[in-house]
Amino acid sequence: MPDPETIQRLAELIVRFGANVQPGQIVTINSEPGKEDLARAVADVAYQEQARFVDLDVFDVYLKRSRVLHADEATLDFVPPWYGERMRALGEHRCARITLSGVAAPHALEGLDPARVGRDILPATREGMELLNARSTNWTVSPSPTKEWAALVHPRADGEQALELLWEQIARVCRLDEADPVAAWTSRLDALEASAAKLSERRFAAIHFEGPGTDLTVGLLPGGNWRGARFSTVDGIVHVPNIPTEEVFTTPDPTRVDGVVRATKPLFVAGALIERLRLRFEGGRAVQIDADQGADIARALAARDEGAGRLGEVALVDREGRIGPLDTVFYDTLLDENAASHIALGQGFGFLIDDADRDAINTSQIHVDFMIGGDDVAVTGMTTAGETVPLLRQGTWQI
Amino acid sequence: MPDPETIQRLAELIVRFGANVQPGQIVTINSEPGKEDLARAVADVAYQEQARFVDLDVFDVYLKRSRVLHADEATLDFVPPWYGERMRALGEHRCARITLSGVAAPHALEGLDPARVGRDILPATREGMELLNARSTNWTVSPSPTKEWAALVHPRADGEQALELLWEQIARVCRLDEADPVAAWTSRLDALEASAAKLSERRFAAIHFEGPGTDLTVGLLPGGNWRGARFSTVDGIVHVPNIPTEEVFTTPDPTRVDGVVRATKPLFVAGALIERLRLRFEGGRAVQIDADQGADIARALAARDEGAGRLGEVALVDREGRIGPLDTVFYDTLLDENAASHIALGQGFGFLIDDADRDAINTSQIHVDFMIGGDDVAVTGMTTAGETVPLLRQGTWQI
Repeated sequence: MPDPETIQRLAELIVRFGANVQPGQIVTINSEPGKEDLARAVADVAYQEQARFVDLDVFDVYLKRSRVLHADEATLDFVPPWYGERMRALGEHRCARITLSGVAAPHALEGLDPARVGRDILPATREGMELLNARSTNWTVSPSPTKEWAALVHPRADGEQALELLWEQIARVCRLDEADPVAAWTSRLDALEASAAKLSERRFAAIHFEGPGTDLTVGLLPGGNWRGARFSTVDGIVHVPNIPTEEVFTTPDPTRVDGVVRATKPLFVAGALIERLRLRFEGGRAVQIDADQGADIARALAARDEGAGRLGEVALVDREGRIGPLDTVFYDTLLDENAASHIALGQGFGFLIDDADRDAINTSQIHVDFMIGGDDVAVTGMTTAGETVPLLRQGTWQI
Repeated sequence: MPDPETIQRLAELIVRFGANVQPGQIVTINSEPGKEDLARAVADVAYQEQARFVDLDVFDVYLKRSRVLHADEATLDFVPPWYGERMRALGEHRCARITLSGVAAPHALEGLDPARVGRDILPATREGMELLNARSTNWTVSPSPTKEWAALVHPRADGEQALELLWEQIARVCRLDEADPVAAWTSRLDALEASAAKLSERRFAAIHFEGPGTDLTVGLLPGGNWRGARFSTVDGIVHVPNIPTEEVFTTPDPTRVDGVVRATKPLFVAGALIERLRLRFEGGRAVQIDADQGADIARALAARDEGAGRLGEVALVDREGRIGPLDTVFYDTLLDENAASHIALGQGFGFLIDDADRDAINTSQIHVDFMIGGDDVAVTGMTTAGETVPLLRQGTWQI
C-alpha cells in the first residue's frame, strides 16, 4: 500500500505548485487505470482550491491493443472530432491541466505490428500540441506509480516491495522528502532558469554532442531562446510543466542537424520498448534509424509525417538533479529525460522562438524525446563566429 | 476472479445483440473504475466487429464526493460545455453507445449534504437525454460486477465469494447460462413486445396501482404508446437498450397523477440509498416526499427543476423475468427496475408519443426510476369510458 500521506503531499505539490490551479478554473486530469488513488487526491485538492470543475479523462492502452489487432487499416489514425474540439475548448476556457505519467500497462502493446501501432498516436493529439504552444492553459505532468509500472522498473523485487520502492524514488525525485518541497523546488528552478538565461544570451549557432556512438551537431535558430522550469500562460499564471524537472531546453533548426547519435537510455514509446536507438541525420532529417530492439517502431514513428523525422527539441541536463543518481531506468520520458540531456523528434515549441522565426520550427503530430546525454557525452556550444564553448563536461556546467 | 469466459460471453452479447454495433461506427463505453475487465472485452469485440473507434469515458464518483465537499455552492451544477457538445456529436456521427452499470463505489457519497449532492446530476446530462429521444444512436446498458458492488449486494459473503455470487446472478439474468443467449433473449423480447402491443391497442386513459401503502392513478396521454425490449434508431438499427430487460413502459401525462405510492425496493440514486420512499401526488406533482432513509436526497432531486417532481415513465413488469425470483436487491436501477413495475420522476420519452402530443410529455434534467410493483400490488387499466381492466394480478398478465 502506498503511504496515504505521500500521495497527499504529491497531490498538493501537483495542484498548488505544478499546475498552480486558480479559483474558478476547470481542471482536467489525464489518468490511466491503476492511478485512481492519486487522481482522486489531486481532484480533492483542486476542489479545495475552488476549482470550478474537475474533468477526468482516463486512457486505457488495452483498448489501443484491440484496435491495432482488429481494426481496418484505413481507420487506425482516426480520432473522433470531439477530441480536438475539447482541446480547443480547454484553451478558450483557460483551463488547468494535470497529467499523471508512469507506465500503467507495460505489456499492453507487446507482439503487435509496429507499423500499425505507429499509426495511432493517442492519447497525444495534434490539437493538444497546439494547445501547449498557445500557452492558454497552466499545466503539469507528474508521475503516478502503479503496481505494473513498479514491476517493470524493479523486476527483482516482489509486487508490494517494488511498488514501495518506486513510491520512495518518486517521493525523492519530487522532493517530497524535504520539509518544504515548494522551497526546495523554488531553489532548484531558480538555478535551472539561470542556466537557461546564460544559454539564451550566448545565441549559439549550434550545439555539439560527442561521446560513444555520438557525434551530432544540432543547429539552433537565430531567434531561439532556452527555457527551463517555470512557464507562464498568456494570462500570467506561472506553472511548472514537469514535476520533477531538471532540464533546460530549446527548439532547434529542423534543417540543420547532422551526424550520428546513440540513445543512452532505453525509450518506452507507443507502449513499446526501443533499446540502443541509433540515428544518422543529414540536413536535419533522420536518414537512418537502427536499434537493438524496436527499430521498426522508431522508423514507423519517424515516418508518421513530414516533420516526424526532424528535431523539435534539444535539452541539456546537469548532474545536480535527483534522477540521474538513482541509476534507474523508469521507462517513462518524464523521469528518464530529466536524468540526461536529450533531443526530441517531432513538433517544436513555438513559444521559445521570437516571432520572426516562428515559422522555422519543426511541425509534426508527434513529439518523442530520447536521451543522448551522460557523463561521457561532452556538450559544446558553437558560436556564429565558429568558436567552441564547453557547456557540459562530466555532466557539470562549464558556463 | 471472474470467469474470463463469462466476461467474454457478456461482452459479445452487449456488442453484437445489445448495442448491435455496425461496421464503421464509433462506439462509446461509459465505465467506472473497477470495470476494466468487461470494458476491455467490450472494446475488443467492438473492434472485431470493425468499429471505427472505441471512445472510453470513465466516471469516478469519488471526484463528485470531493466536489460536493469543497466546491463553491454556485458551481455545483456547472458542466463543461464540451460534455453536451460531445453528446450532440455522438448523434450527428450516428455512434453506438454502451454503458456499464453497477454500483462501482457504494459509499463514495456517504455523509454528504443531500441538497448539495442533488445539484450535481452527472454522469447524466440534459443533452444525453435529448440524444436518447432523438433515436440517432444504437445503445445498451448492461451490468459490470465489481468487488465493491458485490459486497453491497451480498454483505455476508466474503469478498471473492460475493463477487463470484454476483457474477453468477448477472450471468443468470443476462441468460448467459443458455446455450444460445441470443435465441433465449429473442423469445423473451417477442413476448414483451406482444404485451406492449396489447397495451397500446387499448388506449387506456390511466393506470391504477393498488397495494400496501399504494393507491395511485397515473393518467396516460391519448397519443401514447407502450414499448418494450427492442428499439430502432432513425436509421433502422435495431438494438436492445437494456440487458437484462423485462419491462414494458410508456410516458404518462405529467399533469394527471394522483394518490399515494410506496416504493417496494430501496433506491440507490446519486450515490445514496433511499429506503421506503413514499410520495403523494396531486395534479401530477409530488407534493409530499418521505422516506425512512434519504428523504432529503429524494426531495432535492424532485426539486431539481420544474419537471423533476412529475412523472416521465410508467412501466409494468411481470413475474416471468429472471430478476424477481432471485429476491435480491441490487441497488442498481437497471436490475431492480426489471424486478418490479415502476415509475420515474423526470424526463419523459418523446419517441413513445404521436407527434401531436409530443409537447405534452414531462421535461426535466433528471430521470429517476423507482420500484412500486410486486405480487401484492394490483395493476389495473382504466378506459376513457370509465371501465376497469385488470392488467397484473400477483404479477401475472390478465390480458
